[in-house]
Amino acid sequence: MDEMLEMGRQVLAAQPFSVLIGAELTGFAVGSAELKIPVKKELKQQHGFLHGGVVSYAADNVLAYVGGSVLGPAVVTSEFKINYVRPAMGDYIVARATAVYVGKNQAVCRCDVFDVKDAKESLCATAQGTINKLG
Amino acid sequence: MDEMLEMGRQVLAAQPFSVLIGAELTGFAVGSAELKIPVKKELKQQHGFLHGGVVSYAADNVLAYVGGSVLGPAVVTSEFKINYVRPAMGDYIVARATAVYVGKNQAVCRCDVFDVKDAKESLCATAQGTINKLG
Amino acid sequence: MDEMLEMGRQVLAAQPFSVLIGAELTGFAVGSAELKIPVKKELKQQHGFLHGGVVSYAADNVLAYVGGSVLGPAVVTSEFKINYVRPAMGDYIVARATAVYVGKNQAVCRCDVFDVKDAKESLCATAQGTINKLG
Amino acid sequence: MDEMLEMGRQVLAAQPFSVLIGAELTGFAVGSAELKIPVKKELKQQHGFLHGGVVSYAADNVLAYVGGSVLGPAVVTSEFKINYVRPAMGDYIVARATAVYVGKNQAVCRCDVFDVKDAKESLCATAQGTINKLG
Repeated sequence: MDEMLEMGRQVLAAQPFSVLIGAELTGFAVGSAELKIPVKKELKQQHGFLHGGVVSYAADNVLAYVGGSVLGPAVVTSEFKINYVRPAMGDYIVARATAVYVGKNQAVCRCDVFDVKDAKESLCATAQGTINKLG
Repeated sequence: MDEMLEMGRQVLAAQPFSVLIGAELTGFAVGSAELKIPVKKELKQQHGFLHGGVVSYAADNVLAYVGGSVLGPAVVTSEFKINYVRPAMGDYIVARATAVYVGKNQAVCRCDVFDVKDAKESLCATAQGTINKLG
Repeated sequence: MDEMLEMGRQVLAAQPFSVLIGAELTGFAVGSAELKIPVKKELKQQHGFLHGGVVSYAADNVLAYVGGSVLGPAVVTSEFKINYVRPAMGDYIVARATAVYVGKNQAVCRCDVFDVKDAKESLCATAQGTINKLG
Repeated sequence: MDEMLEMGRQVLAAQPFSVLIGAELTGFAVGSAELKIPVKKELKQQHGFLHGGVVSYAADNVLAYVGGSVLGPAVVTSEFKINYVRPAMGDYIVARATAVYVGKNQAVCRCDVFDVKDAKESLCATAQGTINKLG
């Protein structure tokens, strides 16, 4: 595994909430990041779908990763906006983020979240937000 | 406890992810909802603060509650936007939502999320979103 | 008229686009701002309502004003989100903004835009955004 | 010129505010739309840049166009979020939108707005929003 992905995984392992959710960093390079989360029972809402809060966690976290990939590791998600388009009920979700604009102290990033069932991907949410350098 | 709050709590208890997080519905009336979440170890990120994904979960869920309080129980969060303004590191967070506009099929709602330490509240995030009636 | 409002009006008069639209600054104090725009023919869309772009201009500008009222005059709107809830078709619209959070370099602000017909106000849009200090 | 673009231009010509701004529809097909706006004096703010309200108008309108291209002509922008990343000070701006998700009654769409100077494009804003079918 490459060094950057390895480093990103260590950060994820140091986030107790990400461990609780079972998130896995499956891609991390300058300007892109990918997070994978299993659609397991403890993460669902009352109708059997993945809870929207898990999807928003995925967006929040993958946006921070991609922001960190271009701004350096000390970053914070300042804000984001998410549109949910389909409930997630597959095997897992995958959130893929890219940096749309990189400035000195902030990056504007986007991510798409896909529900994956039998290796078929369907968009379930899309988000856009601002990542800021700390300090 | 009043009937509406009791009903709201049953819905929350039926959401495995809300149980995992330890969320508690502390207010639920027509046009308002309040959710409380302990700042416990498993919900943190790598610097010891509450993970942003927990705050976004709180926003997502309390917005859906307040939307449901005015539109009826079968609702879905279509989208929301959240601004994080301070890391949460107190005893618990409380998310309070109100309906700003109620139409036939959708409600535009807002919430403020406060970090509470020794009973002192500090704003940690604010969100605005759209809740839609299902079907 | 007080000094701060007078100063704010001079800035507005120096914005050719605000002059073109016919915007008027009707309130400006530390932490609040109010902008008024006539619902005139040249500002409409094809169905006779005020164009959504005029409403978004109002949000963008009044958010920058309230941000400037707490951060100092050299500010920029970094981002905002707007929900339209009713078409504007009255006599004028009024956009009122407040600062929800003020940090060293940024403020998170909100505004409500009302359609006013025969002195009766109806909410037509609501917005939330980030204003940043320049430089 | 193709029929769809011609129809789109007639709608734009019927919007007095778009005429006032001098917007031109330069692309319109199922799932995509492009709007061009000259950076002229009357559209500026006090520092000589294009007013942010013009950029938000461009986003609002091009998102409605692309939504209409997939949902039918009777649509309304329900909400959008915009991040400004650079002031526009070139010859014109161009806003390009695509539909990210198309449902029965709503579409989630995105647009990028570029500042164009001597035929060189620089991103100046990016937006994401929801377009709804009317009625």
